[in-house]
Amino acid sequence: MKNVLLTVEYDGTNFAGWQRQPSVRTVQGVLEEGLSTVCGYPVTVEGASRTDAGVHALGASAGFRGDFGIPVERIPLAVNHIFRGRTPSPGVNGDLRIVQAREVPADFHPRFDAKGKKYRYIIRNRKEMPVFLRNYRYHVEKPLDVEQMKSAAAQVVGTHDFACFQATGSYPRRTTVRTVYFLSVEEGREGDIVIEVGGDGFLYNMVRIIAGTLTDVGLGKIPPEAMADIIAGRDRSRAGHTAPPQGLYLVEVYYQEA
Amino acid sequence: MKNVLLTVEYDGTNFAGWQRQPSVRTVQGVLEEGLSTVCGYPVTVEGASRTDAGVHALGASAGFRGDFGIPVERIPLAVNHIFRGRTPSPGVNGDLRIVQAREVPADFHPRFDAKGKKYRYIIRNRKEMPVFLRNYRYHVEKPLDVEQMKSAAAQVVGTHDFACFQATGSYPRRTTVRTVYFLSVEEGREGDIVIEVGGDGFLYNMVRIIAGTLTDVGLGKIPPEAMADIIAGRDRSRAGHTAPPQGLYLVEVYYQEA
Repeated sequence: MKNVLLTVEYDGTNFAGWQRQPSVRTVQGVLEEGLSTVCGYPVTVEGASRTDAGVHALGASAGFRGDFGIPVERIPLAVNHIFRGRTPSPGVNGDLRIVQAREVPADFHPRFDAKGKKYRYIIRNRKEMPVFLRNYRYHVEKPLDVEQMKSAAAQVVGTHDFACFQATGSYPRRTTVRTVYFLSVEEGREGDIVIEVGGDGFLYNMVRIIAGTLTDVGLGKIPPEAMADIIAGRDRSRAGHTAPPQGLYLVEVYYQEA
Repeated sequence: MKNVLLTVEYDGTNFAGWQRQPSVRTVQGVLEEGLSTVCGYPVTVEGASRTDAGVHALGASAGFRGDFGIPVERIPLAVNHIFRGRTPSPGVNGDLRIVQAREVPADFHPRFDAKGKKYRYIIRNRKEMPVFLRNYRYHVEKPLDVEQMKSAAAQVVGTHDFACFQATGSYPRRTTVRTVYFLSVEEGREGDIVIEVGGDGFLYNMVRIIAGTLTDVGLGKIPPEAMADIIAGRDRSRAGHTAPPQGLYLVEVYYQEA
């Protein structure tokens, strides 16, 4: 019985999120279908992170256990071939790809052993929005003040109770204290503003609320110096809006050994 | 009665090409629907160029005539608003955008007055292919020799009978002589190879056959010095393969006044 860890890339546009659901196309569902076909028996995968509909991943992690005929490193090629041919329409074909598969110790668990995650959020801050980016950027027409956003971002880094950045109505968690390792805001190419955040864990919608709050700071709706107070207040209503899913990318899941 | 010229951008992934067809989603069909809604009567548009399913446009041209309540320059905003809301699914919404609308002289015709067109063809020449580019690049895994491709491209420029670069079974044309103004091959970012071609007109599938032939040259299957002979032979079977639609972009339609 081998324990396998997969690194997975997907375009979230045509997925109803990560988690398997009946009669809806999800990342977990499509991944399990492809792996089951190649392995010859029903495979269940365990994801390190559940993303919402429309959210993308460059390096999501998922694990599964099994005995199978082909070497572990051959799994991506075999399963990706299925993904490129089977999905519902030509434009959707191949929107999920296994980047890497490797054997891990028997007691390794993709979620419990994760040390944290890194996300990227990309805003296109220009009047014009190319049709090609409609599913891959948050379009903000009015100019954002990046220096103010940076100043606000600096106050988020560290260990805090982040209840203010949790979607209202979230499933209750044991604690809303999390550690944000870094939160950067940089100007990219062609009017992109790239936010990157790493932390030991994220509450539901936390990255999208951080991105929306930084956007509100950049628009002058929230003063950057208010950030520490907003966090201390633990009140969702004082933070900014929830930025839309299509700008969000899960970049990497951190593990000890990586 | 105003004569209006539109510049149009679209992601060809979810269109069955340009030309209006019953019960199929086409660029012309969606454009006419949107314009008809805004203008309040049935609008017919005339395109300068018909692209195939999966082919994209950064600057396609289309014209229409009418009397309408709003200023010509307001048409893009009004119609784009409809495009962002009406299309079949969230990922498809907004895949067509009017970039510009301007009034042109009464005798101006978008197709007959066109002096030529510029196309771009993008190959991703790397082993790895991100899922995000699956509909926007031609993926060629084996390394291409760009210098050989440039040398072959130079022989295409000029006025020639390009019957060799016309899809077999094409609708007969009065002549297969065309003038290629330029044909460049450049290395872009992250393993992209960007082919750009301008000419007074293009035969059916001509740009995709040129891109496929240059790819075959880059792979060493066709020697670059054979290019002049292939053109002189007027035989489709001696040219290279037809590169797939998703790498192709109509960049611009040339007009005298532009």
